Amino acid sequence: VPYRSVVARLEVATAVRPAGAGRYEAVLDGQWRIGTKPNGGYLLAVLARAAVEAAGPEHPHPAAVSAHYLAAPEAGPAVVEVEMLRRGRSAAQLRATLLAGGARCVDALVTCGQLPPTGGPPYWTGVVPPDLPAEEACLPVPADDPRFPVPLFGEVAARLDPASAGFAVGRPAGKGEIRGWVRVAPAPPDPYALLVAVDCLPPATFDLGLAGSWVPTLELTAYLRALPAPGPLRVRQRARLVANGRVDEECDVWDSAGALVATGHQLAAVRLPSGED
Amino acid sequence: VPYRSVVARLEVATAVRPAGAGRYEAVLDGQWRIGTKPNGGYLLAVLARAAVEAAGPEHPHPAAVSAHYLAAPEAGPAVVEVEMLRRGRSAAQLRATLLAGGARCVDALVTCGQLPPTGGPPYWTGVVPPDLPAEEACLPVPADDPRFPVPLFGEVAARLDPASAGFAVGRPAGKGEIRGWVRVAPAPPDPYALLVAVDCLPPATFDLGLAGSWVPTLELTAYLRALPAPGPLRVRQRARLVANGRVDEECDVWDSAGALVATGHQLAAVRLPSGED
Repeated sequence: VPYRSVVARLEVATAVRPAGAGRYEAVLDGQWRIGTKPNGGYLLAVLARAAVEAAGPEHPHPAAVSAHYLAAPEAGPAVVEVEMLRRGRSAAQLRATLLAGGARCVDALVTCGQLPPTGGPPYWTGVVPPDLPAEEACLPVPADDPRFPVPLFGEVAARLDPASAGFAVGRPAGKGEIRGWVRVAPAPPDPYALLVAVDCLPPATFDLGLAGSWVPTLELTAYLRALPAPGPLRVRQRARLVANGRVDEECDVWDSAGALVATGHQLAAVRLPSGED
Repeated sequence: VPYRSVVARLEVATAVRPAGAGRYEAVLDGQWRIGTKPNGGYLLAVLARAAVEAAGPEHPHPAAVSAHYLAAPEAGPAVVEVEMLRRGRSAAQLRATLLAGGARCVDALVTCGQLPPTGGPPYWTGVVPPDLPAEEACLPVPADDPRFPVPLFGEVAARLDPASAGFAVGRPAGKGEIRGWVRVAPAPPDPYALLVAVDCLPPATFDLGLAGSWVPTLELTAYLRALPAPGPLRVRQRARLVANGRVDEECDVWDSAGALVATGHQLAAVRLPSGED
């Protein structure tokens, strides 16, 4: 299947329509929700899509995206306002703001450029990909858990390494790590799928016995390093420090060619057992 | 010495003066340069200082700062333009832009709030601080290397673990890691010192035999987790992936009480040997 021969559901769900003077109209798709609110990585993809549209064909991909989350929008119509900050030869830097329901919801800074194709060993890496059981031996994350429906998992096929999925049966491993295979919509992954991938696994804090509530993202930064090969993404999300009601997580994404194609870092709020910090 | 009894040189060098309507005037101090340009962490501290001024006393500290670097300013007069995005109960979110020499130089998003004091073990952490030799057994980084003067190291006392300083004598360890003790100016560390600390060590790529050139930062995000205890900071900078002319680095900072008080992530440009990616 050629790389762009399928019109991906993510492509439709993140489509933006120019509406004059740096304004883009979007429709936030209810399928990409966690609980009642659109997923943070999905919102990042919408913002990046508008920034890339404004950057023009010389800078066709998002390369670094930093977002601060102000308010969680509802699904439905939204506007992205984009401002060009600097248009250079190898990169364009832009600001993008998501407005919905009359409120400012997400502010982002986006550096756009040309991502290289995946392939070949990197010059150097210190990040070792996790060994995972075969995709079919991993556990699918349900979209319709009655305690907490996550429609997102109807669009994103996430299958967890059973060794990091113990939280689902009350036996977290205590390592602060969730890992597994991810396929975003039916199409091969692209940079926007990578932006979803860095924020779609259950929070790494679930593996620490803190599975009671989702963790709302305060800040999320993604670095995209290459255009991913077709096939499933290998994703590992790790907690780094849980303290004072906040957790920072790092998320690494490898493509089917074994290349580290994206990394996300986020700071999120987390409810800790009373009396603990 | 009480926590704020010394007027720190960093405090003076990052001072901002309100100039009406979200405008703050600053003077970029030539002492805080790497080579000929002000250090990226120092610029982050100037931006955060202006954001905190605008946020007001209920949100007295920077907690998450994300910056995209557009152009390197010269030392001298500068302006920071600040826009309040959302003022909430537990956090204020702002945008800050650094302008100097008629150019837009750095754009940042800043989440401000009240940082907790350091102390006590965290709820959980997966990040193990490095063992370091005693500060006096570590190697001071010179400010006046004739091949590449770094005035910054006249303000920041950085002493490297000899095991990660081999690059200085042509024998890098090849681990992509630089670690050591850092003291910022003569005063106890504060959140602004932490913003400098996450971007002041020599690039981790020096430890990979790429010591020929400094690496210009494209994006830098810092999470501040607690007000640091007085005393030296323990800092570890690690390369994660070096590929296609870019490196992402993570930098962790512990205070003298052993708490992980700050983490930085950056994407930077790096010149690789010709033919390599």
